[in-house]
Amino acid sequence: MATRTDIQAAADRFATDGRAFIRQTPLWKLPGAAFGVECQEIWLKLEHLQAGGSFKARGMYNRLLAHPIPDSGVIVASGGNAGIATAAAARALGVPCEVFVPTVSSPAKQAKLRELGASVVVTGAVYAEALEACLQRQRETGALLTHAYDQPEVVAGAGTLAQDIEAQGGEPPASVLVSVGGGGLIAGIAAWFEDRSRVIALEPELAPTLYRARAAGAPVDVAVSGIAADSLGAKRIGAIAWDISQRFVPQSLLVTDHAIRQAQLALWKEFKLAVEPAAALGLAALQSGVYVPQTDEVCCLVICGANLDPATLA
Amino acid sequence: MATRTDIQAAADRFATDGRAFIRQTPLWKLPGAAFGVECQEIWLKLEHLQAGGSFKARGMYNRLLAHPIPDSGVIVASGGNAGIATAAAARALGVPCEVFVPTVSSPAKQAKLRELGASVVVTGAVYAEALEACLQRQRETGALLTHAYDQPEVVAGAGTLAQDIEAQGGEPPASVLVSVGGGGLIAGIAAWFEDRSRVIALEPELAPTLYRARAAGAPVDVAVSGIAADSLGAKRIGAIAWDISQRFVPQSLLVTDHAIRQAQLALWKEFKLAVEPAAALGLAALQSGVYVPQTDEVCCLVICGANLDPATLA
Repeated sequence: MATRTDIQAAADRFATDGRAFIRQTPLWKLPGAAFGVECQEIWLKLEHLQAGGSFKARGMYNRLLAHPIPDSGVIVASGGNAGIATAAAARALGVPCEVFVPTVSSPAKQAKLRELGASVVVTGAVYAEALEACLQRQRETGALLTHAYDQPEVVAGAGTLAQDIEAQGGEPPASVLVSVGGGGLIAGIAAWFEDRSRVIALEPELAPTLYRARAAGAPVDVAVSGIAADSLGAKRIGAIAWDISQRFVPQSLLVTDHAIRQAQLALWKEFKLAVEPAAALGLAALQSGVYVPQTDEVCCLVICGANLDPATLA
Repeated sequence: MATRTDIQAAADRFATDGRAFIRQTPLWKLPGAAFGVECQEIWLKLEHLQAGGSFKARGMYNRLLAHPIPDSGVIVASGGNAGIATAAAARALGVPCEVFVPTVSSPAKQAKLRELGASVVVTGAVYAEALEACLQRQRETGALLTHAYDQPEVVAGAGTLAQDIEAQGGEPPASVLVSVGGGGLIAGIAAWFEDRSRVIALEPELAPTLYRARAAGAPVDVAVSGIAADSLGAKRIGAIAWDISQRFVPQSLLVTDHAIRQAQLALWKEFKLAVEPAAALGLAALQSGVYVPQTDEVCCLVICGANLDPATLA
C-alpha cells in the first residue's frame, strides 16, 4: 500500500536529499479552447521533463533513498523507462546499477542505459526471461531490487507528482487523466487525491490491464501490443494499483491507437511537446470524445514520458 | 521605440482579446547544479511552447491587434519563424495572409505556412528579392505589413514575455540571457526590465549583428552563416533594438556553433526540450564559460523557438 503519509515522506526525502535529482516539473495551464475542448481549463503536468525522461524517476529514487543500498548496488529488469530511471537514480547516488534487458530490446535503449553508467545484461528472448535472470542474480548479489510499479515506495514516489499538481495549481483539479500500464502512476496519484479529484484511468485498447481486471473483478493477464506497448505493456495490473484504484478510481476508459498517434502528433505540431505515445492518452481521450468533461471543468493531463526517437515525430 | 507602457498595452490586448491565442508559457526553475553550473538558480522560460513555436507570435499578434486590418489582410516576407507567427496570428483573427519566401526556403517550411492557411508566394533567389516583391505587392493591395523585428508593436509584443517572467518568477531575475538576430526579442525584454535585470545579448560567432554594431558604434551589415542562421540570420541589428540595447543591454557576447549544438543536444537528451539552435545559446554560453554567473545568481534563459526538424535531434 501507499498512503498520503507515505507520499509526504517521499516528498520530504526529495526535499532534504540535497542532490536536486528530482525536478519540480512545470504545470502548464491552458484554456480548453487551445485544444478545441469545451472545458474551462486543461492543465498539462509536464512530467516528461523529469530526470530520466519520465515520471518513473520519482518512484525509483524514493525506493533507493528509503533503503540501505548494499555494495552490490541496485538491480532491475527493464528495457524501458523503469530501467532508465533506476540507472539515473543510481548514478545520482553514486551506486552501481545492473539492468537486465531481453535480446529484443533496442540497441538505442541499451546505449542509453550504458550512458547512464549502468551495467547492461542482455539475456533472454522475452522480458519474462530477462526478469528471471535478474531475480537469480539478485539472490546471488543481494543488490536492492527495484520494480517498475508494484512496490510501495515506487507508488509513493509517483504520488509526489500529484502533490506537485495540487501545490502548483493551488487546488486539486476536478479531474486527472492518467495513462495506465502496470498502474504505479495512477496508484500514486489516486492515493494522494483520494476522492478530492476524479482520477480517470486511460489505457490503449490493445493494452487494457486495468479495464480487463475491472471486468473480471480481479487482476488477470492480458495480451498487450500496439503503439504504446513499450511503456504501457505490463501484462497485468499491479497488486497495489488494483487495491488503490478499486477505492479511488471511478472510471477506466480505453483509447484507440489511432487517437493516441493523432494526439501525439498534435502535441508536437501545435504545442512543441515531444512526447512518447503513452503520454498522449489524455489528449487522445479528450479529442476523440472518449472522455467528455463538463464545460466548467478543470481537467489535468499527466504528460508522463518522452523517451522516444524524435525522428518518429517528423 | 517601445516602452513599459507599450508592453503593458500589448499585455492588456492579449488579456482582453478573448481568443486565447497568446499562451502564458511555463517558467521552469531549476538549481544551477542541474546544468553543472555554479549559480543559485537557472530559470528556463519555455517560450518555444508559444503559438507558432516561437516568441514571435507575441509581436505579430500585437501588431495585428493594434491596427485595423484591411480586407486584403496581412503580408510578410519571411521563410522562418516570423512568417509562421504572422500566418498563425492571421488565422486566429480570421484574416487573409500572404507570405513571400525565396526559392531557397525549404518545402517543409512552405508546407507549414500553407497548413496555417497562408498564401505562399515563392519568388526571388534570396531573401532580399522576396522582400522586394513583398513590398511591391503591399503597395498594390494595402495589406498590413509585419516586420520580423523592427516595428514598435512587434518589440512591445515581445516585451510581454519579460513581464511574464517577472510575474511567474515573483521578481526580476538577476540576469537574462537572450539570443539576438534582428534584436526584436532583446529589445522587448530590455525595454521591460530596463536596469532591474542584467540583460545579456548572445549571438553565434557566425551571425554577430549586435556585436559588430557595438564595435563599430552603429548598426552595420554583417555576413551571416552557421547553425542558427535560419532564425538569427538578420544581416543588421534593427534600429529599435540598437536604440534600446544601447541603454539597457550592458554586455554582448559570442558563442561558437559547436557550443550551440552541444547545448541543443543537452536540452533534448537531459531535459527533453526539443528546441532549435537559436534557443540553445543561453545554455551554450553557460556551459562553454562565455558567461560566468555569480554563485548566488538567478539567471534566466529564454528558450525562444522550436521550429526544427525533430530528426536532427536523433
